[in-house]
Amino acid sequence: MMDNKDTLNRLKSIAGHVHGIERMVEEDAYCIDVIRQIQAVQAALEKVSTRILDNHLNSCLITAVRGDDPEDRERVLKEISEVFATASKI
Amino acid sequence: MMDNKDTLNRLKSIAGHVHGIERMVEEDAYCIDVIRQIQAVQAALEKVSTRILDNHLNSCLITAVRGDDPEDRERVLKEISEVFATASKI
Amino acid sequence: MMDNKDTLNRLKSIAGHVHGIERMVEEDAYCIDVIRQIQAVQAALEKVSTRILDNHLNSCLITAVRGDDPEDRERVLKEISEVFATASKI
Amino acid sequence: MMDNKDTLNRLKSIAGHVHGIERMVEEDAYCIDVIRQIQAVQAALEKVSTRILDNHLNSCLITAVRGDDPEDRERVLKEISEVFATASKI
Repeated sequence: MMDNKDTLNRLKSIAGHVHGIERMVEEDAYCIDVIRQIQAVQAALEKVSTRILDNHLNSCLITAVRGDDPEDRERVLKEISEVFATASKI
Repeated sequence: MMDNKDTLNRLKSIAGHVHGIERMVEEDAYCIDVIRQIQAVQAALEKVSTRILDNHLNSCLITAVRGDDPEDRERVLKEISEVFATASKI
Repeated sequence: MMDNKDTLNRLKSIAGHVHGIERMVEEDAYCIDVIRQIQAVQAALEKVSTRILDNHLNSCLITAVRGDDPEDRERVLKEISEVFATASKI
Repeated sequence: MMDNKDTLNRLKSIAGHVHGIERMVEEDAYCIDVIRQIQAVQAALEKVSTRILDNHLNSCLITAVRGDDPEDRERVLKEISEVFATASKI
């Protein structure tokens, strides 16, 4: 349903980044440098989220909104609203 | 198109909150207390945004997705993706 | 303690921005345009917060860390940690 | 300088979480479920950042502010201000 390959590559790169931060901590890196790397990972995760949502809007959402099941449509719209609310918070 | 009255009341309350912070600054309030009040305003703005988006999803979005204009539909979906990306960043 | 004049000007401009958003809502502006303006206000508030924190670090924090009162120092450091945690969330 | 063991455990758990999300994507999980898991990872990273900053304030910052090197002190304060600004944005 998603452009899985690109998403997967990004997630693998993010996991590699987190493992790199683990090594920094093991080697007693400077706190601020560690925080900056964590913030870089957070920015990368935001990009992945936005891409997945983009994909979701252009597939599942369209199907649900055009479909005949009002409950399904409401659920899909509610989910988007919820991930937006959470994205605003974190 | 939106539940204007509730949104308007929230925005008026937020503007009042900002004016209150102005007074705190004029009276040399403690920096951290000012920051906390600013953060409270930010949280209130997030709630307003989420409500407006919620409303938008349940009106304009449905109309556009069900409509016959593919350009209009793409525009509406792109806008939602963009405000999501911005919400993730700020 | 803060560079009050600049902070005050920024807050006045932000309050004016919020009043402008109220008018948009009264005039039934397009939801997404309203959300974008709210996001602009949020970005402006972040800048004010960062400036105030900056000022705080260079005044109150230095005084507290160099002072003789360990409780005062701990309080000031804890406050900074707390506003950082909240800033990360909102 | 940091409480490395706890930080390291948290980072390892976060990396494991990211690997789990990779598997979800490989198995074509529902987009919204993937986004929610990404948001959970983001929240966990925020907690790690806040803990590291906390530690930093109680060690490096105190040393720098009490030390005799004004450049070092300015650098440390500027770094904190910068990670705060970035935390507000992401």
